[in-house]
Amino acid sequence: MTAARRIVPPASPASPAPRAPANEADALVAAVRAGDVRCCARLITRIERGEAALVEPLQALYRIGGRSRIVGVTGPPGAGKSTLVSQLVAVWRKRGLRVAVLAVDPSSPFSGGAVLGDRLRMMEHGCDSGVFIRSMASRGQLGGLAKAAGDALTVLDAMSWDIILIETVGVGQNETDVMRHASVVVLLQTPMGGDDVQAAKAGITEIGDIFVVNKADHPAADHTVRQLEEMIVMGLCLHPDKTWKPPVVKTRAIEGDGVAELADRIDERFAHLAQLPDAGRSQLRERARHRVAELLHHMVEQRLRPDDGLLSDESIDAVADRLSDPYALAASLLARMD
Amino acid sequence: MTAARRIVPPASPASPAPRAPANEADALVAAVRAGDVRCCARLITRIERGEAALVEPLQALYRIGGRSRIVGVTGPPGAGKSTLVSQLVAVWRKRGLRVAVLAVDPSSPFSGGAVLGDRLRMMEHGCDSGVFIRSMASRGQLGGLAKAAGDALTVLDAMSWDIILIETVGVGQNETDVMRHASVVVLLQTPMGGDDVQAAKAGITEIGDIFVVNKADHPAADHTVRQLEEMIVMGLCLHPDKTWKPPVVKTRAIEGDGVAELADRIDERFAHLAQLPDAGRSQLRERARHRVAELLHHMVEQRLRPDDGLLSDESIDAVADRLSDPYALAASLLARMD
Repeated sequence: MTAARRIVPPASPASPAPRAPANEADALVAAVRAGDVRCCARLITRIERGEAALVEPLQALYRIGGRSRIVGVTGPPGAGKSTLVSQLVAVWRKRGLRVAVLAVDPSSPFSGGAVLGDRLRMMEHGCDSGVFIRSMASRGQLGGLAKAAGDALTVLDAMSWDIILIETVGVGQNETDVMRHASVVVLLQTPMGGDDVQAAKAGITEIGDIFVVNKADHPAADHTVRQLEEMIVMGLCLHPDKTWKPPVVKTRAIEGDGVAELADRIDERFAHLAQLPDAGRSQLRERARHRVAELLHHMVEQRLRPDDGLLSDESIDAVADRLSDPYALAASLLARMD
Repeated sequence: MTAARRIVPPASPASPAPRAPANEADALVAAVRAGDVRCCARLITRIERGEAALVEPLQALYRIGGRSRIVGVTGPPGAGKSTLVSQLVAVWRKRGLRVAVLAVDPSSPFSGGAVLGDRLRMMEHGCDSGVFIRSMASRGQLGGLAKAAGDALTVLDAMSWDIILIETVGVGQNETDVMRHASVVVLLQTPMGGDDVQAAKAGITEIGDIFVVNKADHPAADHTVRQLEEMIVMGLCLHPDKTWKPPVVKTRAIEGDGVAELADRIDERFAHLAQLPDAGRSQLRERARHRVAELLHHMVEQRLRPDDGLLSDESIDAVADRLSDPYALAASLLARMD
């Protein structure tokens, strides 16, 4: 048994939270539970590094969490996401809500831009203990960023934030995966000419609960709103909840125009989820299922690392030389995963 | 043991190809081996449908394959990929090479556009038995398209094509995953103003062995070529082979300009791979490793499907209700995967 395997106790699904001895894990859990934001920030840094030893505290934190509303905001670069998020935070603060922001930037391998963005936004909300802002950047791991974002949300969700806002840049698979951790997803669009909303049709619209056209003063803004509304009416947005018609909100984030309305639409979506016949249970289940699958794929990735020893150079060479085949090797690895 | 599990015989990696009784699998393998393109096309249709029963013929086909040169072509929509591919095929045909084209279009859930594209391109190469053109479209499965494309390449690679060209639309994770099956990757760019090559910096450039700026008559073409060349000189293209400086080729695919030069650059890359100290072995290994990981993740996905029975509603509910946690459940599922 390798070190990489020992990190996850083979607990049965319904077993109680692991009772670790009074150690660092307990101290971390206690500090996060007590709302220690510096400890929370340090924990997220360790999550970014991919530290294996964090599974135990994350298990404990998961079990005490689940009260925060998790809102996702995504859209293409340059759409004004950061400004909109900052204004949304201001609206929520005026309404007496405590807010954490997790900005996930897969395109920044060094997190430089993200950190600068944090600083700029911190200037506005920096002295406010009711706001926590934190960036995460990719460490180049395939699929690892969404998993790490899920871990960071587990930490934040064990604290007493009313709302956790998770923001991603872009509209690719990574962003879709990150957004699956949110209960309500806001999809930001820039005003576009012609048929550019085509790009929006390509798939990501299925995860958008609310559409926002920012830069409402742009000449193409109304055209884009109409295109989105037509797309929704025609059933092209592929939203899984057929009782929900995604609203389209026009904002001018830089002036704050439309942001209070967006906050209202977000509230409405949460209210709608609660009023569903299953009170939003199928969404909770879907999120749990997705999270489990994501962690499982991550564990498989870990087992395939050269330092694990499961996948030998000899067996790969046999596939490369056509003495074996990848189907047989994959099946034999799956059988030896436990 | 469920039906979904029985499909892959738990053969050891170094075991010989499974000796199935004289059955449909054997007939398929024999027909593909003999170069029966209609049988090949039908097999790819069955791969698209996700038929589990194909694992055995795919294992046999993999073991007899490996002689074709696999070239990938990717780039954003509207860059002129289809025209370029058609012209490349014409150049290779003039050089006496037999060519198969696999066009993978993740954005088309119905494959309508792709089929139309096939027909148009078939008109040019349709009567030529030295050319095979085939599209595959997404069936909405996460990560499933790259796996299915790998299966289709396994079929084509067991025939006697000199070159198999695999084409994807877009520049996202799906496309990157598909391109990992190719030995040489051509990254197509449209002429762009300003700093738009930024998008190219975001990650996909690491897989590009050759850059092409199409629409060479566009005013911004030379600017884009310069930007790409600067990016390469500055080491920003992150190519894993540090002995290779990716060339930038200007084409005007609609007239055929620059396409013969592109074919030469592709030859040079293959020659370069063969002249490396390890004769391209590390790339072969990397491709085998990636393929095994992809198949393994696909098997895990199959095991998580509701009809498999491994992941029960009760265990998901326990996670959703915070009585359990996703880390514990994922670990227990991994232990029960075999």
